[in-house]
Amino acid sequence: MAFYVYKFGGTSVGSVERIKAVAEKVKAAHDAGHQIIVVVSAMSGETNRLIDLAKEMQVQPHERELDVLISTGEQVTVALLSMALHEIGCPARSFTGGQVKILTDSSYTKARIRKIDDTRIRKHLNQGEVVVVAGFQGMDEDENITTLGRGGSDTTAVALAAALHADECLIFTDVDGVYTTDPRIEPKARRLERITFEEMLEMASLGSKVLQIRSVEFAGKYNVALRVLSSFKEGCGTLITYEESTMESALVSGIAFNRDEAKLTITGVPDLPGVAYKILGPIAEANIEVDMIIQNIADDATTDFTFTVHRNDYQRAKAVLAQTCLDLGARAVTGDDTLVKVSIVGVGMRSHAGIASTMFKTLAEEGINIRMISTSEIKISVVVDEKHLEQAVQALHAAFHLDQVVATR
Amino acid sequence: MAFYVYKFGGTSVGSVERIKAVAEKVKAAHDAGHQIIVVVSAMSGETNRLIDLAKEMQVQPHERELDVLISTGEQVTVALLSMALHEIGCPARSFTGGQVKILTDSSYTKARIRKIDDTRIRKHLNQGEVVVVAGFQGMDEDENITTLGRGGSDTTAVALAAALHADECLIFTDVDGVYTTDPRIEPKARRLERITFEEMLEMASLGSKVLQIRSVEFAGKYNVALRVLSSFKEGCGTLITYEESTMESALVSGIAFNRDEAKLTITGVPDLPGVAYKILGPIAEANIEVDMIIQNIADDATTDFTFTVHRNDYQRAKAVLAQTCLDLGARAVTGDDTLVKVSIVGVGMRSHAGIASTMFKTLAEEGINIRMISTSEIKISVVVDEKHLEQAVQALHAAFHLDQVVATR
Repeated sequence: MAFYVYKFGGTSVGSVERIKAVAEKVKAAHDAGHQIIVVVSAMSGETNRLIDLAKEMQVQPHERELDVLISTGEQVTVALLSMALHEIGCPARSFTGGQVKILTDSSYTKARIRKIDDTRIRKHLNQGEVVVVAGFQGMDEDENITTLGRGGSDTTAVALAAALHADECLIFTDVDGVYTTDPRIEPKARRLERITFEEMLEMASLGSKVLQIRSVEFAGKYNVALRVLSSFKEGCGTLITYEESTMESALVSGIAFNRDEAKLTITGVPDLPGVAYKILGPIAEANIEVDMIIQNIADDATTDFTFTVHRNDYQRAKAVLAQTCLDLGARAVTGDDTLVKVSIVGVGMRSHAGIASTMFKTLAEEGINIRMISTSEIKISVVVDEKHLEQAVQALHAAFHLDQVVATR
Repeated sequence: MAFYVYKFGGTSVGSVERIKAVAEKVKAAHDAGHQIIVVVSAMSGETNRLIDLAKEMQVQPHERELDVLISTGEQVTVALLSMALHEIGCPARSFTGGQVKILTDSSYTKARIRKIDDTRIRKHLNQGEVVVVAGFQGMDEDENITTLGRGGSDTTAVALAAALHADECLIFTDVDGVYTTDPRIEPKARRLERITFEEMLEMASLGSKVLQIRSVEFAGKYNVALRVLSSFKEGCGTLITYEESTMESALVSGIAFNRDEAKLTITGVPDLPGVAYKILGPIAEANIEVDMIIQNIADDATTDFTFTVHRNDYQRAKAVLAQTCLDLGARAVTGDDTLVKVSIVGVGMRSHAGIASTMFKTLAEEGINIRMISTSEIKISVVVDEKHLEQAVQALHAAFHLDQVVATR
């Protein structure tokens, strides 16, 4: 007998039929003798419908009341799923976030979980019931309803798995796992059996939007075994785990990429202490998020400073930087907003040299010009012209034999 | 400065525009310096939509989960109304039944209120906020969500007014008050300025379905001044009050009626102790509700026993009675399902003789045959052929000068 937390997103519970299918899946696990907590999102479209209603009331809906409103979406789903379970003879009991209780801070619409009281859930699990919990929501110390922000149902599931020491947290979604890269770009992309939390974080932040980053961080922090798998297809998905295999590791686990990059450079900046802050401070004040940052010191006591932003922020960032250029007495501002970022990710590269050179050699052989490079312990990212995206991903996928590796870890 | 509980039903909050209109009305009272609690129902149609969803899950939806589901309807409205109030600069704060807390028993779908904790509400009223409470719902001792059954929002409003000693509980609805009779039957029907709780109970149970009986009982029990008025039209509605005026009272306050009556008679029943139970026991077991009951003792030591049921139950009741007739050795079963009940109601008749004879005389002059008579302290009911309904109501309305009385109490 094992103890699992199942999580189903909005698409998986998007209709009466799909909720019934989820009930069958849950019942099968319950019949097999497992203890099951099910966390569900609002039916797809419901949260947006409620937000639209709110916007008809207030251009900027009052955040406390917005949480009261949108938390009803998950409440509807837990009730319907519990009914579907009862209908097929599987004892079940629903809980809102407040009933659990999932205690959060008071940051409406983006609350953080502080504590989970497991008393009620344990009692009903021990009575042989399936416990159905509304994702995405909690309650603060004054019993105000809070929500965790978009994607918060994943966080609820992971937090419950951590608090109650579940054996595994299974995130059912519309993809059947984490792939070596996007199959739409590289048809040879392969589902990974396992991936580490760190790799998953690098993959997620780079555009493989399978799971919310927060929930992966949370799972890593509390050592919760997390599995991503399909609601609709059979299969065991991808296990995201803390443990690195003792078997020989693949050097690279996957290729991530991010379209919509833009690069800005300010040249001939007098190289004085605090220059990075003087350049990036005004950008941050304009609420523009910066991704990669590179600074080169030139010979003449001036420096060139380059960073990337989302393409949508390019024009605004350029205007801010033009002012900074005047203020600092720098030479010029240049930029390009037709770029993409391609990254190779893998814990294997920690202990293996030569990964970077393989990457650069591969891109050189393809005639792809590298515009920027940035590295971390388990990731190497390059910025290239957007026209080279597919070519770069495919070439790197082949160069690191990602189509051939079969469950080495 | 006064302290009011306002209650708006589903039709009054049935659209974005109507919720905004409610917000304006509430703000006006708040601006005038009054303390306001607003109780709201689900937007019209929403509860039925949710029940339909439930029935797609389970033919007989699990009652605990049904309450979790349908309580979301009011939760949506309190959030939207609070936003609408914020939008026009009126501070407001929403509460679910559980947040208030409105403590109920655990009879899901038809819970009874046990206790109301006024701490949170008082705090926010004293901070100058409008307090917006979800009607129809509460929480039991184990923090399970409960609902009070259809029409329960009226009960919530009255219970809050009682617990917090509000000056008045104003029920906004789609009629502008309680009338001397149904204006569709008698165009001269007049809105009453005041009516007593007892009269209102007799009127309500006889078909003037302005308010839920439970909420009127509740208001009477806790001496809450209750006012029924229109959400859409200006006007001061009808005040339902405990106090009888010291001024000269009207003898009759209104004419109520009930279509769909059916009458059953069992004749020649041997007149032995327990005969009423032997006749009505099997009817009750068949879940048929009995209204009026009359027993005449005949000369020959047998008795005739007559009662009325809803027309929909007529055939079933007749079949049950046929068996009883055999068992008791009675003579025969007769009946009629084309009847209506017409009643005159008024606390004035307590102390005035001659009301009954005026009623019977009026009907006799109209050539209307009375089939049954039943009386209580403040009500006289007659059963007549359905073809006489309009004629009887109009004649009685005129006979008791109901079109002429102007606020004598």
